[in-house]
Amino acid sequence: MPGSDDLRRSDWDGVIGIVAVGEYHNVSDWLWIKQMRAAVMRNQRLLVDEMAAPVPEAGEVLVETVACGICGSDLHALKHFEQFTSNTGSLGGSLDPHGDLVMGHEFCARVLDHGPGTQKLHPAGSLVCSMPILIRNGVPQSVGYSNAVPGGYAEQMVLFEPLLLPVPNGLSAEHAAMTEPMAVGWHAVAKAGLTADDVPLVIGCGPVGLAVIAALKVQGISPIIAADFSATRRELALTLGADEVIDPAANSPYDSWRAAAAASSQGERAETNPLTGERLLPPGVFFECVGVPGVIDQMMVGAERGCRFVVVGVCMESDPIRPLLAISKELNLQFVLAYSAEEFATTLHHIAEGQLPVAPLITGHVGLDGVAQAFEDLGHPDRHAKIIVEPGTT
Amino acid sequence: MPGSDDLRRSDWDGVIGIVAVGEYHNVSDWLWIKQMRAAVMRNQRLLVDEMAAPVPEAGEVLVETVACGICGSDLHALKHFEQFTSNTGSLGGSLDPHGDLVMGHEFCARVLDHGPGTQKLHPAGSLVCSMPILIRNGVPQSVGYSNAVPGGYAEQMVLFEPLLLPVPNGLSAEHAAMTEPMAVGWHAVAKAGLTADDVPLVIGCGPVGLAVIAALKVQGISPIIAADFSATRRELALTLGADEVIDPAANSPYDSWRAAAAASSQGERAETNPLTGERLLPPGVFFECVGVPGVIDQMMVGAERGCRFVVVGVCMESDPIRPLLAISKELNLQFVLAYSAEEFATTLHHIAEGQLPVAPLITGHVGLDGVAQAFEDLGHPDRHAKIIVEPGTT
Repeated sequence: MPGSDDLRRSDWDGVIGIVAVGEYHNVSDWLWIKQMRAAVMRNQRLLVDEMAAPVPEAGEVLVETVACGICGSDLHALKHFEQFTSNTGSLGGSLDPHGDLVMGHEFCARVLDHGPGTQKLHPAGSLVCSMPILIRNGVPQSVGYSNAVPGGYAEQMVLFEPLLLPVPNGLSAEHAAMTEPMAVGWHAVAKAGLTADDVPLVIGCGPVGLAVIAALKVQGISPIIAADFSATRRELALTLGADEVIDPAANSPYDSWRAAAAASSQGERAETNPLTGERLLPPGVFFECVGVPGVIDQMMVGAERGCRFVVVGVCMESDPIRPLLAISKELNLQFVLAYSAEEFATTLHHIAEGQLPVAPLITGHVGLDGVAQAFEDLGHPDRHAKIIVEPGTT
Repeated sequence: MPGSDDLRRSDWDGVIGIVAVGEYHNVSDWLWIKQMRAAVMRNQRLLVDEMAAPVPEAGEVLVETVACGICGSDLHALKHFEQFTSNTGSLGGSLDPHGDLVMGHEFCARVLDHGPGTQKLHPAGSLVCSMPILIRNGVPQSVGYSNAVPGGYAEQMVLFEPLLLPVPNGLSAEHAAMTEPMAVGWHAVAKAGLTADDVPLVIGCGPVGLAVIAALKVQGISPIIAADFSATRRELALTLGADEVIDPAANSPYDSWRAAAAASSQGERAETNPLTGERLLPPGVFFECVGVPGVIDQMMVGAERGCRFVVVGVCMESDPIRPLLAISKELNLQFVLAYSAEEFATTLHHIAEGQLPVAPLITGHVGLDGVAQAFEDLGHPDRHAKIIVEPGTT
């Protein structure tokens, strides 16, 4: 919280901004705008409170949050906050485990005002997306995981002008807000370095797994095998491009993968073991999109020799693996995080062009008052995929 | 153990073989050769016993073991045999946790006789090396980890003719026996896919780490940073090509790596973070050559973003890692095992040419009676690197 001097100065900056965009004309509006509502994480609970609206500093733009998706990482952070702050390393710029935190990093927003030193590339009223990063005084801040700036579960945010991307005409804010989670899948698939021979298996069809499936589909990879215990999520996986879905309660995802891989290795894909003459399966690429202890080890048991794992699911806890298993199969584990600026922009483009379908993933909408309940609801995978927070609605 | 019928038949085969190579002429020799001495692992203890000499089957060659190195994996297997047999997967062809086992897979041997269906490419008396694999009736057997055939801690073995490599003239048997462990390092470095920018850090300077260092040196990689608690091993690391060695009891290997990497990133190597302008360190490639629980996690704490780990050390136990750490740094873990036939041959060639120095690694010699004590001695890293078993000596 700023001291009284800061508060006075920032109020005044805010007012200048508001007058500039021409939407507020009365003193009562000025008083209203210096405060805003937000869903705040405080003492490991989510509650709605009033707080000072952020003030754009050098290179920053003030925005009104229009839509913000709830991410599984936020659920993890609420549940395991101490671990989250101690383990995130490069994730958390300045994350105080005891401070207030406004999460929300999957957003689409409308430009309200421009801070000092900005180029005003996007006029007030523009709908924009941004990677959830801010460089303030040379220090990166993760928007949504920073005590210094609020994330998207608040009426307003400040964003970094050089990272703003205009939302293409006709794309709704809630679909544009899906850019961030879809970019996670896009990046994971890019890091997998797939070749035409690879047969992917996606373990877990929550939003991360679904984003991976959609990215695989856009890149023409086939067949795509996916597994989830939830029937709803398996259905979504098929909608987003999976060729075969498996219920692990009924069948082994690894056996199913093996059968699919063997079927796909006809003709020019067929290779044999030079020593034994056995036909080799095409290389497996397994995407870990669950993030729960034990999954990586289970995948190691199920994998064939030479399999590559792409670990996208964020496991917050310590996770025992058996290195000897991995060694005897020469497995490769690529842990992945986020996306590049270019991948983020490509993802927004693909959503706008209709190549990455996002509408089926959106299963609910809430205002700020509904955020805490939405976090609860997302704990039941059969009910929801992505819930969109709309801070401007009630 | 074969039944009496089998024993009689194999005796006779053995005798034919012996007569063919012209070294044994008396009935007493025949009686002697049907039995052989071996250091046997029985009920998790090593003891010297007599056993039936192996009989070459189709495509196999009978050899006299001249020199065989003791591998850290053998020490692990003796200590954790149940885990070893249950976790090895593709390692163990037919490994019965309750059966007798003659280990030893780092050998050089002399050809005694040729089994049926062989091409007799290597005449009796030839000194040969081989990858420790046998294809018997289409089933791969790991020589040294199979109940079906003895490994190199025995007077005789059978080997697979297509895998035999003649030892180049002038190379001693004990140096040729180092082909196998040095090939492990050669393969690990090959799997690392190093570029000119990469700065390697080798964690652990036992035989595996030393083989990695020697391979890095041959490939012209510099600087090579290596860490080990043992002063003897650090000295060996320098001898084999390390540029800087670290005692982790005194200094952090990761801080030392960072300093060396920063120093090496002058001039054309310098890259910067596009967002913050910070100079990036060159990518790290960390070789895990310890194989003890906790090391991978410790390396994850020490690593920079984007670091690649090559896990060569064989950890037999369950090992807790923190996936969030690996995710936040986008680490890559490549687990590696053994080598290809081509890498094995290349390694023998490099040893013969003097490019891969092996003499400094050999710190002891024992006969079969000394194997159990040698296993004990190798538990003290300051005393030994590689002990060579010479089954023909006492």
